[in-house]
Order: sequence, then structure tokens, then C-alpha cells
Amino acid sequence: MSEPRLVEVRRNVLKQNDVIARALREQFRGAGVFVVSLVSSPGSGKTTFLEKTLTQLQPRYRVAALVGDLATENDAVRLARSKAPVKQITTGSLCHLEAAMVQNALQDWNLQNMDFLFIENVGNLVCPSSYDLGENLRLVLMSVTEGEDKPLKYPTIFNSADVAVVTKTDLADAVEFNWEAAQHSVQSVRPGMQIFRLSAKTGEGMNEFQTFLSQKLAEHRSIAQI
Amino acid sequence: MSEPRLVEVRRNVLKQNDVIARALREQFRGAGVFVVSLVSSPGSGKTTFLEKTLTQLQPRYRVAALVGDLATENDAVRLARSKAPVKQITTGSLCHLEAAMVQNALQDWNLQNMDFLFIENVGNLVCPSSYDLGENLRLVLMSVTEGEDKPLKYPTIFNSADVAVVTKTDLADAVEFNWEAAQHSVQSVRPGMQIFRLSAKTGEGMNEFQTFLSQKLAEHRSIAQI
Repeated sequence: MSEPRLVEVRRNVLKQNDVIARALREQFRGAGVFVVSLVSSPGSGKTTFLEKTLTQLQPRYRVAALVGDLATENDAVRLARSKAPVKQITTGSLCHLEAAMVQNALQDWNLQNMDFLFIENVGNLVCPSSYDLGENLRLVLMSVTEGEDKPLKYPTIFNSADVAVVTKTDLADAVEFNWEAAQHSVQSVRPGMQIFRLSAKTGEGMNEFQTFLSQKLAEHRSIAQI
Repeated sequence: MSEPRLVEVRRNVLKQNDVIARALREQFRGAGVFVVSLVSSPGSGKTTFLEKTLTQLQPRYRVAALVGDLATENDAVRLARSKAPVKQITTGSLCHLEAAMVQNALQDWNLQNMDFLFIENVGNLVCPSSYDLGENLRLVLMSVTEGEDKPLKYPTIFNSADVAVVTKTDLADAVEFNWEAAQHSVQSVRPGMQIFRLSAKTGEGMNEFQTFLSQKLAEHRSIAQI
């Protein structure tokens, strides 16, 4: 197998990605926008969660979203129902977003007009982990229907994230979700990681999450001003 | 972005993979074993489905399974409850199995002693699509909780598969799963694709699937003898 060469080429792509991500982060800081990215396996509920979050935040904040997928504009159409500015990035065969794609998508948007920018990555628990997008906070989502052991099976992506969000809690009883086991999985991969439990369908936990985001934005701006 | 070079290197890896996959397929044919691979996103229920399938088939058939994951031996432990021979392949950071890994894992197994060999791939809807493992039949699973549009968003993997299996049908009502939309998604990506609907939890649809596998094995052996 030509593994070593593959790895070497990937390393170059990553290095270039890091340079662009650093520039993006600097740009976000300058504009005072707080950037949140979302990673998860396909079908974990990223888009539903994000649509609700955009809707909830809008009375108080100016929000926008980028959303990545291999194909279709479905998610952008769904997110646009929130009335927030939304742009789809289609990656073709690539299983992750790269910083250059984010930079490109933001070209005709004025970051000064945003409080929060959300970046929904391609649904994948492997590929996105090593690509910095310049975000301030990376959320990893897992739905109760996926089982409790996902952090143990995909440790890298849980390690690359800042906060875990357990979604679809309305189905927890139906799938006999074991909260203790899930918590143990997360903590053994990333000790001390904050975990939110919520259901975008019933609204359970959504307010707590919104409060958390508001605090994060305030912190971000107070640091940016120093 | 150094995309073109990346693609070129990948092509070489794939070519080598195809050579090994062809050798594996020949070996499987010679031994009269029918090889079924499973792909899906993480948490779609591959392992539960496979554990039940192994258990159901065993009174009549000799079965075995290989299971791929980035980390942990969890799935092999779960599958071993079926009493079938099971081997875990841990891929490290690779988001798919390769033919060489299958070849290596099979070294100390006698294929003559098997009717069915199952290969559960790493949970991923992108990476495994282009790697032939020498299998006779590739199943793509999607759970009702993931939503109806997964085939549209991940067309390549649905196109690379032979049969679709919709899992966790016991949760279909709870998530208001739209069968018609799901069927439309599958058919628009791969017209004519056979779709099974089942729940490994309640057993719904499992017998039909077992009958299907038995027929496939019989066909396979009658062709192999020509």
C-alpha cells in the first residue's frame, strides 16, 4: 500500500489549510463574529438543530450559516426557512470542508454584519477532524439513535471538538439510550468535555444551549477588545 | 489546494486495491463462499443487524464475519455473541477497509469452511465507496432516524452498493419517516435498486432478508459450478 506517500501529500494539504484557517480566524476576530462549526455522522440532526438555533437566536443576534455536503442544496433550502443568510458548499467527492472553501464562500458576505456564523460540515465522523476552519468553537453532535459508543469508535473527531451535543433526546427512551454509558464514552476520550442534551423537535435543552452561545459570544468579544 | 496530486496518488492506491480485490473474489468463488459487505453511516445499526443475521443463519449455514473500525474491538465483541467466528480490523485513522486488510485478516481462516462471509466496513458514507473488497454483494444501510435524503446526499456510495436496507423500522412512526420520499431518493440515485425494510430489534423483515441471502448463495454456487 502506498500509505506513506498518501500521508505525506495530505500533510501538505493540511499545512496550507492551516495557513488559511489562521487568516480566517484573524478575520473573524477583527469582525467580532463568533464562529461555530458542527460535525457529526450523517443524519445526526445537524441541520434541524441548526435551523432551530438560527431561528431562536435571530430576535437578538445577526446570524448566518454555511453548510457543506457532497451533493444537493437540500440543507441550504432547509436552513433558509430560518430567514437567515445561508450558503451551500458542495464538495463533490470530498468528505470534509476545507478552510479555502469557507474563505471562498465568505467572499461576498460582510462579516461586520454578523454576530454568529455557523458552519455545518459534511456528515462524517472521520474526514473533518483534521481540517481547521478557523472556527471559535467546534461542536460534535451524536444522536441517541446512534448508540453510546461513538466517541470510543471515533476518538479523533471527539478530541478535535470543544463541546458535545447529544441530539434527538425525544427518542432516548425508545432506543433505551444509556446516558451513563454515553457520558463515560465522551469523558474517556476527552475528559471534562461539556455535554448538552437536547431535542430540536421538542425544544428540550435548546434554551440552555442558546444561553451558552450568548455567553461564548460575550467572552469572545471581551477578549477580542483587549 | 493540491487536489490534482492527491487524486493521482489515490488512483494508484485504488489500482493496487483492485488487483487484490480481484484475487480475493477469485478465492471466494473457488471456495464457494458468498461474501456480503455492509456500508452505512456510523450508528445505522450495521452491527445489531449483522449479529441477528449471523444468529439466524447459523442453524443452516456456516457463517463468519470481519468488522472494521478506526478504534475499539467493541463490534467484534458484540458479533461474537452470535457464536460465529469474528475478527476485528482496526484501521487507525483510515475511514474505510481496503482489500489488503481483508486479505490479511483471512490468512488463518479456511474459506472452505464457510457459506457466508460478512464484512462490516467502517461507518462512513463516503470513504468506503471506491474500495472493492472482492465482495459478491454490497449492502448499504440507512436507518429511518437519519432521514430520507441520504441517497441524494451521498449518491456515490448508494451507487456502489447492490441492495439498500432501511433499518430501525420500529422507530419509523416516532420520526415520521416518509417511505415514499426515501424510496424516491434511492430510485433517483440508483433506479431499480432493491430495498429491504427491517428492524433487527423487533425482527420485522429479517426473515425476508434471510430468504434473499439463501437465494443469492444458491445462485452464486450454481454460477460458480458452470
